[in-house]
Amino acid sequence: MAYVAPLRDIRFVLNELAGLDKVHQLPGGEEAGQEVVDAILDENARLLQEAIAPLNRDGDLQPPTWRDGAVTASPGFAQAFRSFVEGGWQGLQHPVDFGGQGLPKVVATPCMENLNAACLSFALCPLLTDGAIEVLLTAGTEEQKRRFIPSMIDGSWTGTMNLTEPQAGSDLSLVRTRAVAQPDGSYRLHGQKIFITYGEHDMARNIVHMVLARLADAPEGVKGLSLFVVPKFLVNDDGSLGKRNDVWCASIEHKLGIKASPTAVLLYGEDKGEVGPGAIGYLVGEPNRGLETMFIMMNAARFAVGLQGIAVAERASQHAVAYARDRVQSRAVEGSAGPVAIVHHPDVRRMLLTMRTLTEAARAVAYVAAGAHDFAHRHPDAQMRARNQAFYEYMVPIVKGFSTEMAVEVASLGIQVHGGMGFIEETGAAQYYRDARILSIYEGTTAIQANDLVGRKTARDGGAVAAAIIGHMRETLAELDGDQELSALRAQLADAIQAYEEVVRFVVERYRDDVREVYAGSVPYLMLAGLTHGGWQMARAALACRRRIAKGDVDAFYPAKLAGARFYCAHLLPRVEALRREILQGGASTLAMPVDAF
Amino acid sequence: MAYVAPLRDIRFVLNELAGLDKVHQLPGGEEAGQEVVDAILDENARLLQEAIAPLNRDGDLQPPTWRDGAVTASPGFAQAFRSFVEGGWQGLQHPVDFGGQGLPKVVATPCMENLNAACLSFALCPLLTDGAIEVLLTAGTEEQKRRFIPSMIDGSWTGTMNLTEPQAGSDLSLVRTRAVAQPDGSYRLHGQKIFITYGEHDMARNIVHMVLARLADAPEGVKGLSLFVVPKFLVNDDGSLGKRNDVWCASIEHKLGIKASPTAVLLYGEDKGEVGPGAIGYLVGEPNRGLETMFIMMNAARFAVGLQGIAVAERASQHAVAYARDRVQSRAVEGSAGPVAIVHHPDVRRMLLTMRTLTEAARAVAYVAAGAHDFAHRHPDAQMRARNQAFYEYMVPIVKGFSTEMAVEVASLGIQVHGGMGFIEETGAAQYYRDARILSIYEGTTAIQANDLVGRKTARDGGAVAAAIIGHMRETLAELDGDQELSALRAQLADAIQAYEEVVRFVVERYRDDVREVYAGSVPYLMLAGLTHGGWQMARAALACRRRIAKGDVDAFYPAKLAGARFYCAHLLPRVEALRREILQGGASTLAMPVDAF
Repeated sequence: MAYVAPLRDIRFVLNELAGLDKVHQLPGGEEAGQEVVDAILDENARLLQEAIAPLNRDGDLQPPTWRDGAVTASPGFAQAFRSFVEGGWQGLQHPVDFGGQGLPKVVATPCMENLNAACLSFALCPLLTDGAIEVLLTAGTEEQKRRFIPSMIDGSWTGTMNLTEPQAGSDLSLVRTRAVAQPDGSYRLHGQKIFITYGEHDMARNIVHMVLARLADAPEGVKGLSLFVVPKFLVNDDGSLGKRNDVWCASIEHKLGIKASPTAVLLYGEDKGEVGPGAIGYLVGEPNRGLETMFIMMNAARFAVGLQGIAVAERASQHAVAYARDRVQSRAVEGSAGPVAIVHHPDVRRMLLTMRTLTEAARAVAYVAAGAHDFAHRHPDAQMRARNQAFYEYMVPIVKGFSTEMAVEVASLGIQVHGGMGFIEETGAAQYYRDARILSIYEGTTAIQANDLVGRKTARDGGAVAAAIIGHMRETLAELDGDQELSALRAQLADAIQAYEEVVRFVVERYRDDVREVYAGSVPYLMLAGLTHGGWQMARAALACRRRIAKGDVDAFYPAKLAGARFYCAHLLPRVEALRREILQGGASTLAMPVDAF
Repeated sequence: MAYVAPLRDIRFVLNELAGLDKVHQLPGGEEAGQEVVDAILDENARLLQEAIAPLNRDGDLQPPTWRDGAVTASPGFAQAFRSFVEGGWQGLQHPVDFGGQGLPKVVATPCMENLNAACLSFALCPLLTDGAIEVLLTAGTEEQKRRFIPSMIDGSWTGTMNLTEPQAGSDLSLVRTRAVAQPDGSYRLHGQKIFITYGEHDMARNIVHMVLARLADAPEGVKGLSLFVVPKFLVNDDGSLGKRNDVWCASIEHKLGIKASPTAVLLYGEDKGEVGPGAIGYLVGEPNRGLETMFIMMNAARFAVGLQGIAVAERASQHAVAYARDRVQSRAVEGSAGPVAIVHHPDVRRMLLTMRTLTEAARAVAYVAAGAHDFAHRHPDAQMRARNQAFYEYMVPIVKGFSTEMAVEVASLGIQVHGGMGFIEETGAAQYYRDARILSIYEGTTAIQANDLVGRKTARDGGAVAAAIIGHMRETLAELDGDQELSALRAQLADAIQAYEEVVRFVVERYRDDVREVYAGSVPYLMLAGLTHGGWQMARAALACRRRIAKGDVDAFYPAKLAGARFYCAHLLPRVEALRREILQGGASTLAMPVDAF
């Protein structure tokens, strides 16, 4: 089914909630004026809708193929990638110095959402390349940056992240890949990496692998991991490609979803290249501090995966709405002359509105976080930068965890709206359900996000950042005071905020006494936070709509957005209370079962 | 992965909760003594574990194939079906007069659960055959019964249900298939049926289609539907097979899951057989009352699909537990010498216990309903029969809706426990996620179940049956009084029961004033009821365990079951409050959005 970028809602969120106008006024934000951003969004949508969205189903049916270490991408992907990079989209948020556009994150964010909605499998290639670029920008030498970044920005090359090994998934302390120092200052890598997205393909001339490995004398654990850049083809000083390096794709996985993205097993040091045994790599940043560098990149990648959740939820929603308007079945429950389109049936409406408002809430939460990222990086005032950085870092695990868990639910509802047709692959709804399922797993499972939220983001500062956020939420409550039309919404949000506050207090207070009990409620805490943040943004949206309507704006968007905000607060926010109870009462029973009794 | 039938929990539920001993004392229940039932369960488990469970993955990888109207089943299926029917399993609950075993439903129920856990796709063939047998038992003439039933019970033939057409899914009033009366008393059928499970295959010599169609002079709507039996091959008076009838399989579907079960498009009256144009069929029951007859069968089929949910949830849970015990990753959050098996991590435990206790709760709810079915059919006292029949009928949409929605959640959690490996098809966890997704759709979507629960089962009798059930739930609360160890569980259950009562009152009271508002909360009502019934049965289980332990029984099963009951009430029952709020507050916002704004 055709995809239409939800530009009306995106513009609303950028302008009314995420502070695009304020970002525009920051140093370096000059290019992000309303008109320019509008033009970018239009052009972006045009490309994605026309050239990339049609690949989504085709790629699912014709996944990449592996032969003798080489991977052929799904039909049409290489050409679409050329259109994408030639339009300059890979460099959207990267520095002008290396050929990028240097745009704020809040502008790149909707473009990334739309790219993922058009085709999740396709979007992973730019997403991982972004990650490799960020790592090099953060920790690479000037020479490394010059050598690798411009060709990734112009799309001649792509990038990957090589973390996982068969025994080292969530637990990177178990990484075994070895790096041996060479007399010329380079390293030779030996080991096996798995689950490497776009680890091998034929869409670009070279692939730049960012690889976690262990130096000979490195300590055990995560503090013995170093980061290396390992190009598939060595790069000569003049930028031309040299010998084939000793990194070899042994196979690609047969997956539940995102089938068009090749997921590679990569072998380093099997003497399969032209350089002798051992893949040649170059240390990025300091020895044994590879994971710290990766974490910087991972924050960006986790945020991006959160956007993937919003994207697939948006697309699943559009698909379901189209079907529900079209499919005529059964009379209305209140009586009707004949059968009606199923969008009239109350439960179908409930499902569609659940899908839509979860998507919109998650979008608003993510975009507001992106705005904070820009403030954190560009604001002239150090305190403002620090405050926004803290907010952004707190939000990353929520954006990642909540948006992706929500996406699985939305995609599943999308099937349900279609009834039996949803289970037939030709319909297309099933693909979103399959594709979405990876999102709460890769770049850190929801539990890993929740650990981050509990430990580094909440307990470590005694809940200070969370408390500050809750303070801002209460300001929104105050704005809602006295608005009769929003009084139910206000009460529902107030309940959620209070539960949120109580849970944060519980996390902070119990963390020292019984850390296991706190972690038993970690994912429910993350979901509770995500739902409440969603409610906060929906309430802010409702207030903005009320202001527009009061000013006489007759755009039908505003009453619909208001109706959606009301639905979210009446239907989704009540889950907060269930989660609160689960967190506060549930720890002991989670921990009581003896391992042998499982 | 190998499947092990959960006989310990099954026996506990049968004996302690579902009243197997009382069913044994009923007329016709003589065969269902403890020892016989134990032997049946053991023998059933042996066959399923050895001969059928291994087919599950193979069938997924090698679905049936279609060629020129003929369908070849997945490799091994025909042979396994022979073992199944030769063991007498198809006739387990069918009358002895026609070759069955005549066992109570409460005994057939665990066998059916285990069959579905072994292989959902395989189990659909006996499941649909059961449906065809029931229809004929209910409404067929003696001659029809004699002609068709024994061969279905002995597995020479199988049965199907032909309801759906492209324009008539949930809405059977739109069925168009025509039946034209013939001078000899038979009929000729013309039309197209879709989504016909096992509508064509090579596992048996004949297929008995039960087909909804419209007589020439029939009124419009569901009151103009008649039911016909249409064999693939005509049956001679001596029982031998005659000419190929004019029903032809035009294609089979490419589905998200249950891939090994052929889902056929059947064309009637295309002159593709040996009888000229028009499939020859025989009226079953009275003209224009076909849907009433189908409804009797559908109750059984809906119950059976609920069991499918429990079955796939059980299998997904076993798979996830095995992985979580085996996979070593990360240190314990409270500190440990090295990485530990992930079953030690609090969030993994939370997921595993959510999976397990949802499964166990749904099992107990279903088995108790099956016990009530036996009382309704076999008890000498008419009042007892009526009361149990009302209970069973109230429970059917809950067993179907709750068990299948829960199964999708459990299967999804099963993937999550596996992390990245869960997304790789070879692991097997993904198949349960795909397979489970049909269960909340076929035999009536969850919304259709919820409509039944709201309309026929709650509003129609002014909530009398629901009120009686709530009264029984309060008796369990009274039993929990004063038990300090179960005081938290008691409080959690009491909250849920109160919410349940409030929602039932809301449904009954609002039904006349604003039926749309009630239906807007229909699925949440069904889920609330399911969760609360699950909590009730878990509380009854906890009491039974306490009694056993008090008597000095040291079986480790009892403390584990107790721990599970506590977990369920602390983690799952809180959802009842969220649903209560959604139902009571949410109707208006579900209905407010204009259709054009979707």
